[in-house]
Amino acid sequence: MRVDGKPYRTIWVEDDGWSVGIIDQTLLPHDFVTCRLLSMEDAARAIADMLVRGAPLIGATAAYGVCLAMREDASDENLAYAYDTLFATRPTAVNLSWALDDMRKHLSDVPVGDRVATAYKRAAEICNEDVAISESIGRHGLDLVQALAAHKPAGEPVNILTHCNAGWLATVDWGTATAPIYMAHEAGIPVHVWVDETRPRNQGASLTAWELGQHGIPHTLITDNAGGHLMQHGLVDMCIVGTDRTTAQGDVCNKIGTYLKALAAQDNGVPFYVALPSTTIDWQAGNGVADIPIEQRSGEEVSHISGADEHGARKVIRISPSDTPIRNDAFDVTPARLVTGLITERGLVDANRTALAAAFPDLSDS
Amino acid sequence: MRVDGKPYRTIWVEDDGWSVGIIDQTLLPHDFVTCRLLSMEDAARAIADMLVRGAPLIGATAAYGVCLAMREDASDENLAYAYDTLFATRPTAVNLSWALDDMRKHLSDVPVGDRVATAYKRAAEICNEDVAISESIGRHGLDLVQALAAHKPAGEPVNILTHCNAGWLATVDWGTATAPIYMAHEAGIPVHVWVDETRPRNQGASLTAWELGQHGIPHTLITDNAGGHLMQHGLVDMCIVGTDRTTAQGDVCNKIGTYLKALAAQDNGVPFYVALPSTTIDWQAGNGVADIPIEQRSGEEVSHISGADEHGARKVIRISPSDTPIRNDAFDVTPARLVTGLITERGLVDANRTALAAAFPDLSDS
Repeated sequence: MRVDGKPYRTIWVEDDGWSVGIIDQTLLPHDFVTCRLLSMEDAARAIADMLVRGAPLIGATAAYGVCLAMREDASDENLAYAYDTLFATRPTAVNLSWALDDMRKHLSDVPVGDRVATAYKRAAEICNEDVAISESIGRHGLDLVQALAAHKPAGEPVNILTHCNAGWLATVDWGTATAPIYMAHEAGIPVHVWVDETRPRNQGASLTAWELGQHGIPHTLITDNAGGHLMQHGLVDMCIVGTDRTTAQGDVCNKIGTYLKALAAQDNGVPFYVALPSTTIDWQAGNGVADIPIEQRSGEEVSHISGADEHGARKVIRISPSDTPIRNDAFDVTPARLVTGLITERGLVDANRTALAAAFPDLSDS
Repeated sequence: MRVDGKPYRTIWVEDDGWSVGIIDQTLLPHDFVTCRLLSMEDAARAIADMLVRGAPLIGATAAYGVCLAMREDASDENLAYAYDTLFATRPTAVNLSWALDDMRKHLSDVPVGDRVATAYKRAAEICNEDVAISESIGRHGLDLVQALAAHKPAGEPVNILTHCNAGWLATVDWGTATAPIYMAHEAGIPVHVWVDETRPRNQGASLTAWELGQHGIPHTLITDNAGGHLMQHGLVDMCIVGTDRTTAQGDVCNKIGTYLKALAAQDNGVPFYVALPSTTIDWQAGNGVADIPIEQRSGEEVSHISGADEHGARKVIRISPSDTPIRNDAFDVTPARLVTGLITERGLVDANRTALAAAFPDLSDS
């Protein structure tokens, strides 16, 4: 997608042919800064400190982390060490283990001397496959947007609510939840996006609002509290969110607060869609509420907020009393019964075990 | 309730016998500062700029605003001018018009020369009546907390989720939603409060967390997104929220986001109570979603956040891109079907037209 009119991906190999470029997403929306990963540790830090985030981009970054590790030392021991180090950065993201397993599978049987070249080739393939997946999700989601647009008075936009950032910044390009939106915009269908700010890390306010604005998509920022009210008043035509992990029965683990929007969508007859690459499906998990461990993050993410002061300088402020106890669950689980459909790279799939297994017989255990 | 161990109300007449003391709640939780209202315009500004907030405290402040107006000029013209000026400060708060109507009724037939004394006497009565109402709400809510505590293992707290600040800071003392909590605590029943931070103005993070902490009530601050997840995992025993306006059929207009918590409570079998003085019932309104105009506030409340920097100095930062469009609805409506019960000064009342009319035959139109 475009930044200041120039096309970008979220991760790329630099002109030197080996170092890895990323956007430091912690500086958005105030500063657009790219940086270079020079080592596996750089890649691990970029994931852990959320310079990169979003399930697909985390996977792609881990893949390039393995490349950088092989460049330093292509031994089996270092491959295992890189796997463990990168895996430990974000326990909830199933794409992380998928990408690391994939890299290990492609490298294990390759002579040590060929591993660097093989790793870079495979990491590039992972990125291109991710773009192809996002494009497929976008095309299938576009059908849904088009169907809603057909019932709107001419020129009136389809109003789409999204939570967190499942945008192109969360993938290699296009995004997952945003891919149908970008494709509808390119197809000339008027769309307008309600952007949940997404506390505590404000990925909606800082990332989704920024990327939609850069690409020229009409949008309005709202608090996480507002979506239900907008739905009660007929101002939301559909919800599209991403997911960090989807279970075999169609339960959706996504950024905390997603469940509340799904409840409001059901209460108001608003279709609630989840866009996902099949790599985020955890075929071993069934009941998401019971089976998925939820990452607990620092209370400082709630008590302290980062932003720009009136001079544009980055400042951190505290909003709660200094001694207030805080709990900060990063994700919640939306039960499949609240999900209208899963927009996958193979089309729209009902959120249940039978439909998922039928759509992905090659991946599911059944 | 206590601040640094010393009992306070939220509004009082100073030792000079006429100026009115309040807590500047915009400076909480970082600084505890009281200030004096010296004119009707001071009172109007204190309401409009939210130095005082919460339906009952807004009513009490408006009453003292009329006192200050009478002190300057006790004519009919100035009474009407004070009424209009104070009424225009916060259109949604039904207590505001209730208190102003009450003051006008008590003053209209009084000779101009007696109006100052009458006004101060009536404003003090309004404050004392509000404290008595909060105490009644607290006693009735205490029964509900006690019933839940009886089913808990000994020593385990009753977990109560609240949204925004319907605490003693929102009333003259005790609060509405918090009154049962303070009374349970005084009665030796272990309670623990989940405090929604309540974006965009963070009244939960800055006010509820502060007042519970000052009084020694165990509590944990969470994002507005988290409550549904906590309910899914059995960590919430009941919700108690306040209301700015309740309709004759029991629909509840409260801080934006309340509706989402009520949906989650219903989905998880958690009782959802609304604590209210009967003065917040709007007997003319039926269907809250259709009938209640929702205050639209500045987008800056969403894009800009105020807090303390590392030196304790107050700073305002921007979290979204500077050109992002924003919508900021201040309230939403929770339909009566999602409300387990209304905790009023006359006891627990079902959230429907028949039960409300039966509990308040003297107030309702029926």
